Amino acid sequence: MEITNVSEYDATAKEKLPKMVYDYYASGAEDQWTLQENRNAFSRILFRPRILIDVSKIDLTTTVLGFKISIPIMIAPTARQKMAHPEGEYATARAASAAGTIMILSSRATSSVEEVASTGPGIRFFQLYVYKERNVVAQLVKRAERAGFKAIALTVDNPRLGRREADIKNRFTLPPFLTLKNFEGLDLGKMDKVSSHFNCCNLADNSGLASYVAGQVDPTLSWKVSITSLPILVKGVLTAEDARIAVQAGAAGIIVSNHGARQLDYVPATITALEEVVKAAQGRVSVFLDGGVRRGTDVFKALALGASGILLDDRWCSHWLLREKLV
Amino acid sequence: MEITNVSEYDATAKEKLPKMVYDYYASGAEDQWTLQENRNAFSRILFRPRILIDVSKIDLTTTVLGFKISIPIMIAPTARQKMAHPEGEYATARAASAAGTIMILSSRATSSVEEVASTGPGIRFFQLYVYKERNVVAQLVKRAERAGFKAIALTVDNPRLGRREADIKNRFTLPPFLTLKNFEGLDLGKMDKVSSHFNCCNLADNSGLASYVAGQVDPTLSWKVSITSLPILVKGVLTAEDARIAVQAGAAGIIVSNHGARQLDYVPATITALEEVVKAAQGRVSVFLDGGVRRGTDVFKALALGASGILLDDRWCSHWLLREKLV
Amino acid sequence: MEITNVSEYDATAKEKLPKMVYDYYASGAEDQWTLQENRNAFSRILFRPRILIDVSKIDLTTTVLGFKISIPIMIAPTARQKMAHPEGEYATARAASAAGTIMILSSRATSSVEEVASTGPGIRFFQLYVYKERNVVAQLVKRAERAGFKAIALTVDNPRLGRREADIKNRFTLPPFLTLKNFEGLDLGKMDKVSSHFNCCNLADNSGLASYVAGQVDPTLSWKVSITSLPILVKGVLTAEDARIAVQAGAAGIIVSNHGARQLDYVPATITALEEVVKAAQGRVSVFLDGGVRRGTDVFKALALGASGILLDDRWCSHWLLREKLV
Amino acid sequence: MEITNVSEYDATAKEKLPKMVYDYYASGAEDQWTLQENRNAFSRILFRPRILIDVSKIDLTTTVLGFKISIPIMIAPTARQKMAHPEGEYATARAASAAGTIMILSSRATSSVEEVASTGPGIRFFQLYVYKERNVVAQLVKRAERAGFKAIALTVDNPRLGRREADIKNRFTLPPFLTLKNFEGLDLGKMDKVSSHFNCCNLADNSGLASYVAGQVDPTLSWKVSITSLPILVKGVLTAEDARIAVQAGAAGIIVSNHGARQLDYVPATITALEEVVKAAQGRVSVFLDGGVRRGTDVFKALALGASGILLDDRWCSHWLLREKLV
Repeated sequence: MEITNVSEYDATAKEKLPKMVYDYYASGAEDQWTLQENRNAFSRILFRPRILIDVSKIDLTTTVLGFKISIPIMIAPTARQKMAHPEGEYATARAASAAGTIMILSSRATSSVEEVASTGPGIRFFQLYVYKERNVVAQLVKRAERAGFKAIALTVDNPRLGRREADIKNRFTLPPFLTLKNFEGLDLGKMDKVSSHFNCCNLADNSGLASYVAGQVDPTLSWKVSITSLPILVKGVLTAEDARIAVQAGAAGIIVSNHGARQLDYVPATITALEEVVKAAQGRVSVFLDGGVRRGTDVFKALALGASGILLDDRWCSHWLLREKLV
Repeated sequence: MEITNVSEYDATAKEKLPKMVYDYYASGAEDQWTLQENRNAFSRILFRPRILIDVSKIDLTTTVLGFKISIPIMIAPTARQKMAHPEGEYATARAASAAGTIMILSSRATSSVEEVASTGPGIRFFQLYVYKERNVVAQLVKRAERAGFKAIALTVDNPRLGRREADIKNRFTLPPFLTLKNFEGLDLGKMDKVSSHFNCCNLADNSGLASYVAGQVDPTLSWKVSITSLPILVKGVLTAEDARIAVQAGAAGIIVSNHGARQLDYVPATITALEEVVKAAQGRVSVFLDGGVRRGTDVFKALALGASGILLDDRWCSHWLLREKLV
Repeated sequence: MEITNVSEYDATAKEKLPKMVYDYYASGAEDQWTLQENRNAFSRILFRPRILIDVSKIDLTTTVLGFKISIPIMIAPTARQKMAHPEGEYATARAASAAGTIMILSSRATSSVEEVASTGPGIRFFQLYVYKERNVVAQLVKRAERAGFKAIALTVDNPRLGRREADIKNRFTLPPFLTLKNFEGLDLGKMDKVSSHFNCCNLADNSGLASYVAGQVDPTLSWKVSITSLPILVKGVLTAEDARIAVQAGAAGIIVSNHGARQLDYVPATITALEEVVKAAQGRVSVFLDGGVRRGTDVFKALALGASGILLDDRWCSHWLLREKLV
Repeated sequence: MEITNVSEYDATAKEKLPKMVYDYYASGAEDQWTLQENRNAFSRILFRPRILIDVSKIDLTTTVLGFKISIPIMIAPTARQKMAHPEGEYATARAASAAGTIMILSSRATSSVEEVASTGPGIRFFQLYVYKERNVVAQLVKRAERAGFKAIALTVDNPRLGRREADIKNRFTLPPFLTLKNFEGLDLGKMDKVSSHFNCCNLADNSGLASYVAGQVDPTLSWKVSITSLPILVKGVLTAEDARIAVQAGAAGIIVSNHGARQLDYVPATITALEEVVKAAQGRVSVFLDGGVRRGTDVFKALALGASGILLDDRWCSHWLLREKLV
């Protein structure tokens, strides 16, 4: 069957991928209410189409942190892409470059920043969690900088890992032939203690390595200055209050995100939260959005409500990958 | 099974028509949200029935652009009717005449204006797209005028062809034994370059022949004066703003239409948009509606909300045709 | 299976009755939207339950037009009950008497007023349509009076017969061994012309015999004075405007009814319309309701919103009958 | 299959338990609208998640009537647990103690207060209905006091037993090898007359033994003073009006409950009613809630709306039991 829209990749992925892998990509947290709502909320937004307008010349290009891209669509950071295909993040990187847009590489990628950089030219950002071990954070940032990554997308919405029940049932774990490449060769400090569980979802992501110890976070984010001169996009904002704090703390931009509905269930759809965040940002920084985008009309709705662009997120970004290689 | 309402033609059509043809008639754009909503919006409108009212004498006749018709129901322009049956537009024309109402012939009909005229007496209007090649438009209008057509329905809602995914999957194309008869014998100018693809949906309707180059449209529509003295109904208005512009530009009437939900998805149902258009028209021109009408009660709802009549549109008009010949 | 609520009679009836008969009892008009809504509207009304209230002594008796009944539940007039069972209206009459409540006999019953009266004591009202031939109406009323019926329920919501598509498909007709007994022996005048079609749904109910020619109705209903001294309940009111007119015209009571959703589709649920009718009646006459009542809690909701009682209507009243004889 | 959330116990219970027993635990009253709504109402409450908040130290402990518990989750009183497993209330008691929280034992338990007390240390409350025979109530309270129970949860929402149709169809009755242990050895007075029907749902719970004769209830609840010095939680409040009365009457706390949707159908979800009860209580007593709680996020929603804690109610408390022994 010819695939005619992004949602149809889902059926193909379900058919071609092992259940554990498909479930990992496709699941939201708990009841998956927000997963559905990320889509439903878009369908409640209607157009008022005007006629007799000159649309013969359309310009879809836009600028993100000073970088010009061909369309207001970027690739969201999504972990562990090689589970879907051996080319993993390489293919995504090449696809993003071919499309003339930005890829944001997950720190939990199965390819390192250097490997992704070696696939060819392209504008790339690096996603990062805030670990208790700041030295690890510093090493990751340095590594991304050296590999030519242009900005940091700082994920701030996972003080705990979201409860994705399919992963628990499947006892999800990274296949043994894959590793989280960006952590290789780093001095992990206390994180070393859990390194043997590095690829285990429950331990590595949640209790140990990946737990976000907010008590040590400087609310002004001033600590980031000592680590990097790269601009920082704060990813995971859903309220006006946090948008204001992010702007005051010096964020270069805000990504309205509910982590693809994979963290806390029963939060609003991102397209619902967008308006208050845009209003709170007062035009001082650009606001982006991920979650639930499947159609060009969804992108247009986000732009119409004040977003500067959208990010294709976890589940369907892997389909972009599939498109290049598997379909 | 006896067919007792318009919707039941759908099942019959699905059974009797090749999948490619059925899908072409039945599909809406993309997620088909508006296709559903065109129906759903009617079902949210309720009656406040009065009792003890004299309804012994009912007069359903009405007047459209000065032409008296037996019921406030006309036949919307729908393309390519001979795909459903060899009699195609002939049968529709005869059915409309027998019912004492107006048929609007699509410019993309599989029968020419002359052929339709030859089926017998009847009031007929001609539907038209605005092509970049105005000479083609002029020739089409002249041809319709000469064949006795009484008005032009100008479709203004397809700067691009809507994305109907079933057509893409089916690689929809007009069967080889059929042609778009109204274009035969015309000087197509630059359109000639795409004439070999004339019957191909993707090329002919979208990129080439049918693309509506709004940049060349005179917003006052004054260009139409040089082409025809026929009254023009502007088809595809969904907002008060465009209703006002259409009236100022000299439209003889407005058709509230979302192109049978086949163009842009997530626009309002036509019955929803009707009220603001009627209000904006201020009684200066008549307002008609197509989209989602399946019941006499739907017609009544449209009239109660200010419409002067409705048009049976794409999908189900073909059933009217089926009724005469196939069922 | 033990039947534990009124709705479960539906499954039993579907199993035991011929399709044509079941469909006749169970169908609403056209899309059957109002049929569903009659139920759905009840389920949107919630209770605010109080605690620590003395409910040890409950009195369910009430008074209708001066007649005391055991519960605020009466039997709505429903036509042609002998199609369900040979005992037909006899069984319903006995059930109503046993329950200590009022039966309203349909003028289109398959038992005559005399036959129903002969089943034993009981308070009974007679339902009537307003026929063009007033002499027929007068004869029907006289006959009911003589048989001891105590009031007239005048159905005013069927200027035309509702379009019940299952009946059309089934070519519904009264089985040959049954007749509409109340019309036997009457001087039918012009109605005699259609008497050969008397039992045919389409002709008898709609075009000919049963058509309600409102143009000849005296809006003050004063004509009824010359015919009967019985109190008249106006059945089929759904608006405040008509409630006021009915009161002014001397109605003894109002029945909020949409004819069991069998006449005009897309009218409000009766429980929705109740409030405005009660308010308009200003306590000058009692207001009753039929349509959608399936639970004691439904009855309570109707009472809480101002009804003096409810009528079990078409579809499920026949189940009361079934209970006595068939189950 | 690994059970990953409370709702999944339902499937397991349905598989492992006899239909009569499963239905007894799982059914709500009549149409079970409120049973669904207890869940649905939670899903309409959304979070506004904040970021960059220190959540490294979380304290879930709370205090109920002066007793410290590890989580704001208690075990609601649910009758007849030994139908699910021979360990019945023993296992629930041990599970509650292990979890560091309070179990409320139903007076209609299949284990006596003494038996539950003998399972080991733990904080336990005793649930009670208000019987006409106050001497029986007094004996029950004394027995619970002596067994070390610390408070009374007084159920006030069953002047009649709710109509659970599955129980009627199943002719539900307590299996012969089980008895309602707390009534054994008591002087039942007039209740003795129905003692042979003691285990029969319809008679024992409804018409005879269990009927709540509100006419004899002192609205100030002052009679309880003569019976017990234990604090009383009033269980079954759904309105502000009754919350105020309960506080004035000296209740130590209020449990917002609709009896697990097993009593009166079409009452609001407890999470919906919570806000007005909390407001009416004005902080003078603690407000708890049962009904529909399945997720930690549900508990959080209840706390955010003013509850001091929640009770896991009928249906799923039995799963806690199942967890320990059956799964």
